[in-house]
Amino acid sequence: MDLVIRNGTVVTAGEVCQADVGIEGGKVKQIGQGLGPAAKEIDAAGKYLFPGGVDVHTHVDFELLGNRSVDDFYSGTVAAACGGVTTIVDYALPEPGQSIQGSVEAWQKKAQGKAVIDYGLHPAILEPTQKIIDEMAEAVADGYTSFKLFMIGLARFDELAPQYLKVIAQAGRLGALTNIHAEDQCLISYLAEQFAAAGKLGVRYFADSRPRLVEGLAVQRAITMARYAEAPIYLVHLSCEEALAPIREARARGQVVYGETRPIYLHLSRERFEEPEGERYIGWPPLREASQMQAMWDGLRTDNLQTVATDHCG
Amino acid sequence: MDLVIRNGTVVTAGEVCQADVGIEGGKVKQIGQGLGPAAKEIDAAGKYLFPGGVDVHTHVDFELLGNRSVDDFYSGTVAAACGGVTTIVDYALPEPGQSIQGSVEAWQKKAQGKAVIDYGLHPAILEPTQKIIDEMAEAVADGYTSFKLFMIGLARFDELAPQYLKVIAQAGRLGALTNIHAEDQCLISYLAEQFAAAGKLGVRYFADSRPRLVEGLAVQRAITMARYAEAPIYLVHLSCEEALAPIREARARGQVVYGETRPIYLHLSRERFEEPEGERYIGWPPLREASQMQAMWDGLRTDNLQTVATDHCG
Amino acid sequence: MDLVIRNGTVVTAGEVCQADVGIEGGKVKQIGQGLGPAAKEIDAAGKYLFPGGVDVHTHVDFELLGNRSVDDFYSGTVAAACGGVTTIVDYALPEPGQSIQGSVEAWQKKAQGKAVIDYGLHPAILEPTQKIIDEMAEAVADGYTSFKLFMIGLARFDELAPQYLKVIAQAGRLGALTNIHAEDQCLISYLAEQFAAAGKLGVRYFADSRPRLVEGLAVQRAITMARYAEAPIYLVHLSCEEALAPIREARARGQVVYGETRPIYLHLSRERFEEPEGERYIGWPPLREASQMQAMWDGLRTDNLQTVATDHCG
Amino acid sequence: MDLVIRNGTVVTAGEVCQADVGIEGGKVKQIGQGLGPAAKEIDAAGKYLFPGGVDVHTHVDFELLGNRSVDDFYSGTVAAACGGVTTIVDYALPEPGQSIQGSVEAWQKKAQGKAVIDYGLHPAILEPTQKIIDEMAEAVADGYTSFKLFMIGLARFDELAPQYLKVIAQAGRLGALTNIHAEDQCLISYLAEQFAAAGKLGVRYFADSRPRLVEGLAVQRAITMARYAEAPIYLVHLSCEEALAPIREARARGQVVYGETRPIYLHLSRERFEEPEGERYIGWPPLREASQMQAMWDGLRTDNLQTVATDHCG
Repeated sequence: MDLVIRNGTVVTAGEVCQADVGIEGGKVKQIGQGLGPAAKEIDAAGKYLFPGGVDVHTHVDFELLGNRSVDDFYSGTVAAACGGVTTIVDYALPEPGQSIQGSVEAWQKKAQGKAVIDYGLHPAILEPTQKIIDEMAEAVADGYTSFKLFMIGLARFDELAPQYLKVIAQAGRLGALTNIHAEDQCLISYLAEQFAAAGKLGVRYFADSRPRLVEGLAVQRAITMARYAEAPIYLVHLSCEEALAPIREARARGQVVYGETRPIYLHLSRERFEEPEGERYIGWPPLREASQMQAMWDGLRTDNLQTVATDHCG
Repeated sequence: MDLVIRNGTVVTAGEVCQADVGIEGGKVKQIGQGLGPAAKEIDAAGKYLFPGGVDVHTHVDFELLGNRSVDDFYSGTVAAACGGVTTIVDYALPEPGQSIQGSVEAWQKKAQGKAVIDYGLHPAILEPTQKIIDEMAEAVADGYTSFKLFMIGLARFDELAPQYLKVIAQAGRLGALTNIHAEDQCLISYLAEQFAAAGKLGVRYFADSRPRLVEGLAVQRAITMARYAEAPIYLVHLSCEEALAPIREARARGQVVYGETRPIYLHLSRERFEEPEGERYIGWPPLREASQMQAMWDGLRTDNLQTVATDHCG
Repeated sequence: MDLVIRNGTVVTAGEVCQADVGIEGGKVKQIGQGLGPAAKEIDAAGKYLFPGGVDVHTHVDFELLGNRSVDDFYSGTVAAACGGVTTIVDYALPEPGQSIQGSVEAWQKKAQGKAVIDYGLHPAILEPTQKIIDEMAEAVADGYTSFKLFMIGLARFDELAPQYLKVIAQAGRLGALTNIHAEDQCLISYLAEQFAAAGKLGVRYFADSRPRLVEGLAVQRAITMARYAEAPIYLVHLSCEEALAPIREARARGQVVYGETRPIYLHLSRERFEEPEGERYIGWPPLREASQMQAMWDGLRTDNLQTVATDHCG
Repeated sequence: MDLVIRNGTVVTAGEVCQADVGIEGGKVKQIGQGLGPAAKEIDAAGKYLFPGGVDVHTHVDFELLGNRSVDDFYSGTVAAACGGVTTIVDYALPEPGQSIQGSVEAWQKKAQGKAVIDYGLHPAILEPTQKIIDEMAEAVADGYTSFKLFMIGLARFDELAPQYLKVIAQAGRLGALTNIHAEDQCLISYLAEQFAAAGKLGVRYFADSRPRLVEGLAVQRAITMARYAEAPIYLVHLSCEEALAPIREARARGQVVYGETRPIYLHLSRERFEEPEGERYIGWPPLREASQMQAMWDGLRTDNLQTVATDHCG
């Protein structure tokens, strides 16, 4: 062995045990008690040894509406590593008119020479033209096997919905997966205008202006679209029972639908928006009522949610 | 009495009984056995006497995409009267750019001097501009207390959804009711293209190309929108359990949602599309599986559907 | 006409209207405005005229566990008449070993010469022997077409359940209806002992010692039994959503299940048990949380409950 | 190491991998590639290495109604070992009037000197007297931490239900678990008599005479009882969606309910009863429709069922 880490509390997918871990050529080769001597030895007594974490949803080097993330791929992946994460999958967002290949090349440039851990990319599609749909096959061939759609914002999802449905179907045919940010733009726009007109501005109104059904309705709609596309979908950063219920129903029927939640939806609730620096907790969707944290834990426990990812954007 | 109709089987909202009906000044004044003599008497032995029917959903004089209905307000209301209907409520559809007042005036012109029974009008809104929203108050003052929205077609519902949501809210504030044609345009467009690409053309593919979830998803969405508009809605021509289920759920919660079905959804099923002249049965939404006829009867029986109307368009 | 009641506000099953009511030979013959003169006339201006009420669940002359009702068939039916009820259906309960015919004869004796309004009888079955099951056909032939079963108390329902299931099936074969008092004896016995052991005695603990699931579980069980008996059932004095939910589910499936509630479950809630004379509100099942009053109204509105009856026992 | 098993495909709770397994003092000490030499080595190339199986539901040496199992603890545990099972938990059933301690001693005698693998015992309770309830604490102290109740048969569950509820509550207070055979005796008795009267005898009628709701209703009832006992329960040998649905509902509410299914419910369906030797497939509950096999797999996949056990009784 090149390295033996001794006496740690080893956590694997199946158990937690006291053991040594033997590593050779950068890979775990042995787990057990009393492993033979190695070139290098580390004493991990009193410490946990975990597998490297995979954070499948990050935005480490990203600019939106004139705001740039404080991280780049160096600081972002150093931070990830410090938290035990050894792989991230970041979202590559295109410029207007840019091809899928163009957006992933741009993102590869951001990452190369900077990332200190493994990384992958999900290409986002903001303009579902036939040209872009045609580019998807090459992207999959290049190893980009998951695509991201946004039901809100610049993507003009409602207006272009039939084209986005073709994207989902094409991903399915290619054996790829469509990741979807599911919130209903109509309700968001309407409520934002209502709240503004009533002078209800500021972070303390954030959760009420974007209530749980905004998410629930969009998830329901995305699942129905995917059903007719005969393709799998993966719903990102879910926060509440209203989003979970249609997933549970779809999975019970046998539809291939996956769900992701974030640590903040498992551990924080909307009371945070009342704090002096409440805006630090903003994300889409918002933090919810405390009852929803348990709903998310239940979703994980029952395998209706499959992943926890950060949606990190510093 | 001016008139007594004797010995008929009288049907009222509450019972069916053998009785005479006494009429004075054009109104029913007495119901009972052995009513006194009248200026005119009719023997209705062996016949049923019903109250005049109200058909709240008609298009008797209507042109769409170059096709004109065969009826006008004369032939249409004569036909209605022959079927026992003494009031119709027809839909007034605007020309591009036309005001609500303009559309109802145009429709009044079609009706005046021709209608042989009572009639009312529902103004349809196809362009939800602020100008149109501002006109709604005058329309209500003029007695037009129900407005129609289309989630499909030229109305560009998906693109303009936040504005349509304002229409629903404004109707609620005015004490009026929004009638909604609920089918999901995205699924319709996608499936139509898929079916066409597969050469599945013709009326025998009609029901499959516009499946029940097309209706169910749109109803779900309309109900959620109305919930945030804090306004009542009335969903027209429902055909299936997928549409009924969200209404049932909404009404159980206390939301004010009404549903309408048509005689054809109670009595006919999609096998009709296999007939030589199957296109005679086309409507939106399509005829469904036979099981759905029972679902519609159950909806009426449990007061989750409140009206049966024809959507007549000859 | 023998009698005309003029100018009242007449309430029928289908409408409320201003009208005169003409009566001949003890029956309503005419309803209308300006009815002809009659031998006797009554001015009902400013008053409502209702059809006579039918109270299908009473115990006007009844002794249980040494306590006798204060009413007999005279005072009980006078009271009913004062409240607008012109027919009651009382429960005939047998002595140990008594035949169905014996119990209805005993009850007829109580009623004859005393009842001032119409009445009917439901025979109760407390010993589901084959002899009693054989007597049911004669009872139906004599006009006693509904039988009562108790899932609690002396009827030893749990022990004799397979025999009671035969009673339900036999009623179904005879075209009769089985009325069921549905509460779960096991939970009642267990909780009563637990509450007593904890010193939780007195009417303020009544509702908690007999919670809603006691009723819900028994209703579920009765419905499942009736399903295999292939016979209709009628569940008496329901008080809560837990009881209503399985009825709703059964009726949606097409099973013939009817439900009854009481005025007290529509208008009073368990806070009454905190009053100084809280024991005046005792009944089986207990008054429930205020939320359940709405649930009962919803049950009536949606035709999942079909009757309101008093279960009067003075 | 005493022993190294080399080159096998090792299956653990968390993964499947190619590895050697090192054993010392009868325990697995190391898993990995290239483990050091041992006193004894076995080549497992091309073979799977599993952890020893635990079959938590067996009746290896059991007599019921004059029929004795063909196995004893020797042949039964040899058979288990041949199938990879290294621990069984057998049910100890009392003679009439026998104490818990008496029944487990009798069962220990059957096992001692014969069992070739590890074993445990679940004491069954067929007479829920206060004396037996008092004995439960000693049984738990002796290591018998799970008790078995039968809702059918000699246990007279329906008649003694309040006492059985005390058993469940007492188990909960002792930190023990109550295992329940959930089928509804009333429906079984009624249907058996109906089928016999109709001449529907023989194994081909077995599944219909004991339909899925027999199981579903009993599971519902057991869960409601446990809810008031504030104690966990474990429902044995579940076969159908009707049994699974109330467990799913209870677990979603947070109630501690566990479910077990059997290999035969995962792999066989009721068509087997049509075979010439169909009686070989008899068990309680019966094999179900093929659709139910998938329901059981879904139960396991969603963690609503937690164990697969054989209920082996040769």
